[in-house]
Amino acid sequence: MALLDQIKGPNDIKKLSPNELDALAEEIRRFLVRNVSLTGGHLASNLGVVELTMALHLALDLPKDKIVWDVGHQSYTHKILTGRKDKFMTLRQYGGISGFPKRSESDCDVYDSGHSSTSISAALGMARARDLLGEKRTIVAVIGDGALTGGVAYEALNDASQLGSNLIIILNDNNMSISPNVGGLSSYLSEIRTSDGYIQLRDKIHDSLSDAVPGVVKGISRAKQSLKSLMVPGMFFEEMGITYLGPIDGHNIKNIAKSIEDAKRVNKTVLIHVCTKKGKGYLPAERKPAQFHGTPPFVVKTGQPAKAVKAESYTDVFSSEVLKIAEADPAMVAITAAMEDGVGLRSFHIRHPRRFFDVGIAEQHAVSFAAGLAAGGLKPIFAVYSTFLQRAYDEIVEDVCLQKLPVVFAVDRAGLVGADGETHQGIFDLSYFSSMPGMTVMAPKNGQELRDMLRFAMELGSPAAIRYPRGAAYTGLGEFRAPIEAGKAEMLYDEGGILLLAVGNMVKTALKVRDALKELGLKCSIANARFVAPMDTELLREAAGKYSMIVTMEENVYSGGFGEHVAAWYARQGLNVSLVQIAIPDMFVTHGSPAQLSRLTGIDAESVVAKILGVSGGRIS
Amino acid sequence: MALLDQIKGPNDIKKLSPNELDALAEEIRRFLVRNVSLTGGHLASNLGVVELTMALHLALDLPKDKIVWDVGHQSYTHKILTGRKDKFMTLRQYGGISGFPKRSESDCDVYDSGHSSTSISAALGMARARDLLGEKRTIVAVIGDGALTGGVAYEALNDASQLGSNLIIILNDNNMSISPNVGGLSSYLSEIRTSDGYIQLRDKIHDSLSDAVPGVVKGISRAKQSLKSLMVPGMFFEEMGITYLGPIDGHNIKNIAKSIEDAKRVNKTVLIHVCTKKGKGYLPAERKPAQFHGTPPFVVKTGQPAKAVKAESYTDVFSSEVLKIAEADPAMVAITAAMEDGVGLRSFHIRHPRRFFDVGIAEQHAVSFAAGLAAGGLKPIFAVYSTFLQRAYDEIVEDVCLQKLPVVFAVDRAGLVGADGETHQGIFDLSYFSSMPGMTVMAPKNGQELRDMLRFAMELGSPAAIRYPRGAAYTGLGEFRAPIEAGKAEMLYDEGGILLLAVGNMVKTALKVRDALKELGLKCSIANARFVAPMDTELLREAAGKYSMIVTMEENVYSGGFGEHVAAWYARQGLNVSLVQIAIPDMFVTHGSPAQLSRLTGIDAESVVAKILGVSGGRIS
Repeated sequence: MALLDQIKGPNDIKKLSPNELDALAEEIRRFLVRNVSLTGGHLASNLGVVELTMALHLALDLPKDKIVWDVGHQSYTHKILTGRKDKFMTLRQYGGISGFPKRSESDCDVYDSGHSSTSISAALGMARARDLLGEKRTIVAVIGDGALTGGVAYEALNDASQLGSNLIIILNDNNMSISPNVGGLSSYLSEIRTSDGYIQLRDKIHDSLSDAVPGVVKGISRAKQSLKSLMVPGMFFEEMGITYLGPIDGHNIKNIAKSIEDAKRVNKTVLIHVCTKKGKGYLPAERKPAQFHGTPPFVVKTGQPAKAVKAESYTDVFSSEVLKIAEADPAMVAITAAMEDGVGLRSFHIRHPRRFFDVGIAEQHAVSFAAGLAAGGLKPIFAVYSTFLQRAYDEIVEDVCLQKLPVVFAVDRAGLVGADGETHQGIFDLSYFSSMPGMTVMAPKNGQELRDMLRFAMELGSPAAIRYPRGAAYTGLGEFRAPIEAGKAEMLYDEGGILLLAVGNMVKTALKVRDALKELGLKCSIANARFVAPMDTELLREAAGKYSMIVTMEENVYSGGFGEHVAAWYARQGLNVSLVQIAIPDMFVTHGSPAQLSRLTGIDAESVVAKILGVSGGRIS
Repeated sequence: MALLDQIKGPNDIKKLSPNELDALAEEIRRFLVRNVSLTGGHLASNLGVVELTMALHLALDLPKDKIVWDVGHQSYTHKILTGRKDKFMTLRQYGGISGFPKRSESDCDVYDSGHSSTSISAALGMARARDLLGEKRTIVAVIGDGALTGGVAYEALNDASQLGSNLIIILNDNNMSISPNVGGLSSYLSEIRTSDGYIQLRDKIHDSLSDAVPGVVKGISRAKQSLKSLMVPGMFFEEMGITYLGPIDGHNIKNIAKSIEDAKRVNKTVLIHVCTKKGKGYLPAERKPAQFHGTPPFVVKTGQPAKAVKAESYTDVFSSEVLKIAEADPAMVAITAAMEDGVGLRSFHIRHPRRFFDVGIAEQHAVSFAAGLAAGGLKPIFAVYSTFLQRAYDEIVEDVCLQKLPVVFAVDRAGLVGADGETHQGIFDLSYFSSMPGMTVMAPKNGQELRDMLRFAMELGSPAAIRYPRGAAYTGLGEFRAPIEAGKAEMLYDEGGILLLAVGNMVKTALKVRDALKELGLKCSIANARFVAPMDTELLREAAGKYSMIVTMEENVYSGGFGEHVAAWYARQGLNVSLVQIAIPDMFVTHGSPAQLSRLTGIDAESVVAKILGVSGGRIS
């Protein structure tokens, strides 16, 4: 790593001679593969942008100039080039560097990202601020073609066309989101990519209307039928008022840097279309970019995971149950927003291709589309990560709940997700779901209950959400399998004393708490809440007189969460109970292992016990 | 109204002879102008689509075929043609017909809309459902060019290009949202509209890059410079894989109907570009379409409001205060999402054009853009209606709060808005804002306090939201003007007894409640909460021992609202207080006057008193 060792901070790359650059790219790739193989992390996307990042650092002056990384999981090379190479062994670990840009880590990170498609908006804001403040600096947004399917990116393009000064958008086109891309824009970009050379003069014969119905359209498209248009790559962008440059080979440092230099001199918004290969330079990642999007530690030689395959995850449970439901109910259909693998819909897609819809990175559309499917007589399941579903808040309220349409939300990665950190924790969904009128909100205690809840939700006939965590499905408590009834909790151990009223994943934690309390000679009961909305108010009413204390437990922030609803309900009823609320403090939660983060946020068994004992000190007789 | 009287239900229009259609259009216009002049309502948009709607009803077979109206405020003619003419005197009134499509009103209304840009998603869902269920029916989405700037519409277009069967999108292009449209797409459509004839062969010389920097771009755009492309209208859509038809005169019934007939035979997604004039046929509305977007009752002859101009509204207060802030602080900038008039930024726009940004109907972009402005050193205010801001939930969390950026949200139309009904009530914002870590959430008791809160928010240095209602700014309580302090409530009347802890608008109601309670011989104190987050926990702690009862009052749903936070906080502290929570039940609230709706939802003074007395029966000594 002779060259890489010379890079201690921003602009050090400029000290290398031009003919050393390809060798540096090689070293960076080796560094990335070796490090990510040990720590886990995002690999394929980072291998794809090594040269692009180097070109940016050559053409720009950091930190004066600003790079906004869309999503941000592709910022590893940027971190390496800005003095953070030596911290890579701490990547995504508690107290270590983040897998995403963080303003707190470096003044070369100008925008904390994590969710897709917002980079153009942010960069446009910075460009307008620069102009109003009379500053001179170049501002660049780097956005993938996958992220470009997100509506907010288009809203930003529409606005960016009005900018009368320089803004550079780099379209990092690898033809992938995490899954391969879908939709009209993707086909369009692919047409440009696969064209012979950079500029193509081509018969534009797909006047689709006249193709489809020969001779039908007279008045309107007669003239069109007789026309053959010339197509310039990038017309889509040019027509929105954005200057288009490209496509450019994304692994040619010199050409990219040259284009950026050119683009800097244009007094408007310029889009540079750069074609990269996900996983570039590491064969297993080139072959299976989706698998190496986010990867656990792996063996470099083989690309195989370093540890044996884990136990069945909640995602696996969902994946297999959805197949069974589909066999029994032909009206069931499934939707993903560019996460076919992540949410477990791969096998459903293969088995029922006509009933599977990948809408791209487009959660808002996914929800309104689901509402349309339901209004049309089908029974859609939208499988999605908790944190990404935030983007469709309005459509869930206005399109689904308002019309009481039977859309089922299979909300994966709910609660603390671990290494992805702040932008990926699924800790707000209980709050936002439970304030939506008519939404049934559930969380299963174990894998079997996820199956049962899915079947229940499919028959409910109104909006329903089931939230479940990342990782292995809990297999304990199999002996408890009372039928799911709307708004009914499930009593697991009823021995008086303290009642632990736990939501989903926290039932497992409640078992540990109970053991600890019993060792201390305290009686402890456990109820599995099952429903966060509607709540089991009958149980709450009975519990008021029956237990010495009621402890609500949830993996969600306090504000608007289950515990607050319970406390408020008791207050409304004028029932005086001793309540303890276990929830995540109202904060963004950093990266780390789920165990570390549970401890940090005070929702692990030990913290819960301490809190109960602290409260109970003077109160439990 | 000889012709209109023959229209009793769907398809009756087909019984008229072709040469009677223009006369029917005339009658519908007269009917609309007369009725809306009496009831108030949306006028300009409805006058614009009379012929378009008639053409749809001629070309389609309702209710078998389905029309999804984007936003839906342009559906009056559709309602008239489907048997609801005689109900127009009840329009937007409590118990009367809605100003938006409602499935509960007619089987010809297939999708309840209200928020913009989701019609293509919903229609695509219905089209896919139709295909899977083996049905035959035509599905049409009608979307304005304004709504087309919303990202979810683009997400849907991207997906719709993959449909292998028929779906018709009518682009109702009037070059307006509520305000004139902005952005690249708008310019693009305008280029098509103003072209000479329907198809134009034109020198496409705006290779902007080469224009801007002559001779700069060699390798990449040399070929482009030498090219002149032919432009076919609608290339933007064609390149997304959508067949384009148009532009068509939107006031020529026969031509539109013919195009729809043609489009029905295409086995893919077809967009018909129809050019209409907002306000068509009523001169005052043609001249001032923004004013006649939603109008109070008016005098037909003059177009003047039937009643004298009302008192200063909260919007007016915001409008004037923002000007003062701007004079004093050059870093302050303001953003609207296509609602310059509605949110009160017209005069700011005129005075500070460079510091004003209308981003189009694009709330998500508005928020990420604001985050970028703040990250770039400015102090942005995003003025927006409560219900529309729902669309940016994710960006507020991930872009603004996560980075603690000083973006100020001026949240207008918070609480019950009245005649616009379910989709426009601003009754969720306290819930969603207060679960966002680091967001300061305020509500003013009167107009002066809105001014003070704006100034406070501008200096806060972290995310802040101020929510205020539609309508006249309260001018009472001017004698109370304690300085705004973070997280501090304002005690107004402290006389022990019952404490009314009221948020924003509800302080006014609290005064009435206090009067009523005093008449009954009960002591009553009032605190103006000011802050929903962070709460004034010091006041809460003191209040616990001091008052016989604490009544939280807010114009927001229960779940996740202020009352729940207060109740949960007391429970966490183990403080036993007698609490009453006044809030809107967890429901969608229909249209009606604010007074009717306050009563309906139990938040008017009388209901509050009754609730207090009911609870206090056995509890207050």
